[in-house]
Amino acid sequence: MATDSRPADVLARRHPQHRDEWGVEFARIVAFSDGVFAIAITLLVLAFQIPENSPDVVHSLLSQSGDVFAYALSFAVLGRLWLAHHRFFSVLERFDARLMGLNLLYLAWVVLVPFTSEVLGDYGNDSGGVILYAAVMLGVTLTFGVEIVYAYRAGLVKPELRGVEHRYAGTASFIVAAVFLASIPVALVAPDFAPLMWLVVFFSGYRLARLLGYES
Amino acid sequence: MATDSRPADVLARRHPQHRDEWGVEFARIVAFSDGVFAIAITLLVLAFQIPENSPDVVHSLLSQSGDVFAYALSFAVLGRLWLAHHRFFSVLERFDARLMGLNLLYLAWVVLVPFTSEVLGDYGNDSGGVILYAAVMLGVTLTFGVEIVYAYRAGLVKPELRGVEHRYAGTASFIVAAVFLASIPVALVAPDFAPLMWLVVFFSGYRLARLLGYES
Amino acid sequence: MATDSRPADVLARRHPQHRDEWGVEFARIVAFSDGVFAIAITLLVLAFQIPENSPDVVHSLLSQSGDVFAYALSFAVLGRLWLAHHRFFSVLERFDARLMGLNLLYLAWVVLVPFTSEVLGDYGNDSGGVILYAAVMLGVTLTFGVEIVYAYRAGLVKPELRGVEHRYAGTASFIVAAVFLASIPVALVAPDFAPLMWLVVFFSGYRLARLLGYES
Amino acid sequence: MATDSRPADVLARRHPQHRDEWGVEFARIVAFSDGVFAIAITLLVLAFQIPENSPDVVHSLLSQSGDVFAYALSFAVLGRLWLAHHRFFSVLERFDARLMGLNLLYLAWVVLVPFTSEVLGDYGNDSGGVILYAAVMLGVTLTFGVEIVYAYRAGLVKPELRGVEHRYAGTASFIVAAVFLASIPVALVAPDFAPLMWLVVFFSGYRLARLLGYES
Repeated sequence: MATDSRPADVLARRHPQHRDEWGVEFARIVAFSDGVFAIAITLLVLAFQIPENSPDVVHSLLSQSGDVFAYALSFAVLGRLWLAHHRFFSVLERFDARLMGLNLLYLAWVVLVPFTSEVLGDYGNDSGGVILYAAVMLGVTLTFGVEIVYAYRAGLVKPELRGVEHRYAGTASFIVAAVFLASIPVALVAPDFAPLMWLVVFFSGYRLARLLGYES
Repeated sequence: MATDSRPADVLARRHPQHRDEWGVEFARIVAFSDGVFAIAITLLVLAFQIPENSPDVVHSLLSQSGDVFAYALSFAVLGRLWLAHHRFFSVLERFDARLMGLNLLYLAWVVLVPFTSEVLGDYGNDSGGVILYAAVMLGVTLTFGVEIVYAYRAGLVKPELRGVEHRYAGTASFIVAAVFLASIPVALVAPDFAPLMWLVVFFSGYRLARLLGYES
Repeated sequence: MATDSRPADVLARRHPQHRDEWGVEFARIVAFSDGVFAIAITLLVLAFQIPENSPDVVHSLLSQSGDVFAYALSFAVLGRLWLAHHRFFSVLERFDARLMGLNLLYLAWVVLVPFTSEVLGDYGNDSGGVILYAAVMLGVTLTFGVEIVYAYRAGLVKPELRGVEHRYAGTASFIVAAVFLASIPVALVAPDFAPLMWLVVFFSGYRLARLLGYES
Repeated sequence: MATDSRPADVLARRHPQHRDEWGVEFARIVAFSDGVFAIAITLLVLAFQIPENSPDVVHSLLSQSGDVFAYALSFAVLGRLWLAHHRFFSVLERFDARLMGLNLLYLAWVVLVPFTSEVLGDYGNDSGGVILYAAVMLGVTLTFGVEIVYAYRAGLVKPELRGVEHRYAGTASFIVAAVFLASIPVALVAPDFAPLMWLVVFFSGYRLARLLGYES
């Protein structure tokens, strides 16, 4: 920043000059993202329906087994995404306006998960419900991959953590995105099979990324 | 504060004297505002309706295209507002009771957006739904403009950032407010056209503010 | 704490010994309380009903004027409570288990406000809806008063801020509680009149507390 | 860390090397957990139903006494869990991936409480509603016990706080879990009696844990 040739007032206009200020702003972006994740993950519970005037409440509850599967899957998915987001932010040195925009776009996909999860719980045997879920997860993972790649290219990552192995985080995200994309035609033929593909990618994607040298 | 002539007990009564304490309080106002934004933006998802016992879930989902447009628009709007709020707070040095009150009033408008967004999604071709959305956005942007102007007049902005170019932030907010106001009579005649005006103002308002020397 | 005669392991068991740790814990209580306030205030929007397949959406929206009044009142009430809570916490030096319990009880009342607000919006001309609102506000303000008095008696307030004028914060809270109590029999006879009493107490209670030397 | 024999790039890959960075990450996990607790506790209010076009609103409200009991119980339960979680985190020195996973699993149970509470409020005299509540609480307390035991075994607790008395925190959690388990067969025979068992365990479990030397 000492070598930045732009006039001081332009810099002042674009962002506060003090490191402390940036610290506060970074914290706000983190807090906002965490808040959205925390709310989205908690709204998953709204998928369960309270039986109304049911003579046999146990039976009514057991009939929601699709919702239980969708809840467990989506909680694991959102928890996993949050951990990856958490790790990504921990290697960031700073933010720019474009990364903020990308992060908002990413969150716009994340916020849809409670809805797609509820549809999956109710229509898990139906191609439509499965494809909707896969499409939103495709949006989530693609945007996250773009976010990571952009952060590396724009030099927003801490210099000491710009090692080759970190670059695979974006790759891992695109691999997962490819599986979600591939599961869409699969869901047209075999809707029950597609979620199995997702589960496999969540575990082997993790292992694959480890092989490639990056855990997220 | 060393030259403040009021008696010490009055100052103590009005606010804690230590800088650290103010740091904590400022952080609480920021956290509260961020929390409200994060919840409001996540509640946007409640606008989507789960098809009930639908034989054709794809068709039921596709029929919600109005909701998809309203979701995308409102997520962009709330994200944009949060970024502007974020930037405004980063130039603030301190808070007073009136700015806190204005900020609460501002948040009271922001909280209404998930509702107006849901109405817009269901009644986007109807003047009523469009006018309601425009009226709330008018409230949001007017209050934000007043908040900015007040903060500058009351000397709550960091001295090193009180340059001329920052004053345009309030102006930019009033320009956007004026377009929302102008879209109300337009919506009475052509409800489909008014949202286009909003989109234009969100992009050219940004460019215009840049011309005027301030990005928010 | 240097003069504390209890053995070190008992102290260690009860709370972490480092000031930093207490800083973190204090921050968590604050963040949790702020989170509850932010969510409760945002859930107020759920009181508005989306007209379903309404031929005249404007008319449907205008018929919710009771909800608009309840929203404005409850946003002002929750905003005011949050500001007072904010100010109370800023004079606290530390927490003990009992104050934490009282604070949770206080939040349990606060969380009910979106519900009582929605009932008030729908049944504002009915004694039942008005009494329910007054009863919950009575619970809120009484608990807050007890919280303040307890914090002073248990010596949890910063020594430099234990001046006489701060003690009136509890008194002010009890005065407001008394007005909410008095509004209950009034609501039985004149349900439309009781909310006016609340508005008066929110403004003159403020002025009265100022006369007594404390703003909250 | 100076004596860590793993190559520097492996360490860099697994976690940021700076203490400050871990401070930020720890804070995010805490903030996320607090956010989930705050939202779950606030969503409890959604269990109350707004009477629709009721001629006698008081009667409609009084008929929700089961919901009031479930609300009070669940607010106390979630508040108590949050306090215990709060205390547990205050003795932690650091996190590892497994503890993060366990904490997410724990939160997955916590998020279900607003749903089970609503079912309990509506079907409190029915074995099904009571067993569902007990089963989720069993999941909560078992997972919390495992989290505590794991943190001690993996050496994630601050060295100065690894005294014998802290180990009882896990034990206390398992005792409470055992009572929730025992209440399930009881609920089959006497659904009204099981919640009394829970209340006893919440108070005597507390006392018992105190006898054992740990308050949570």
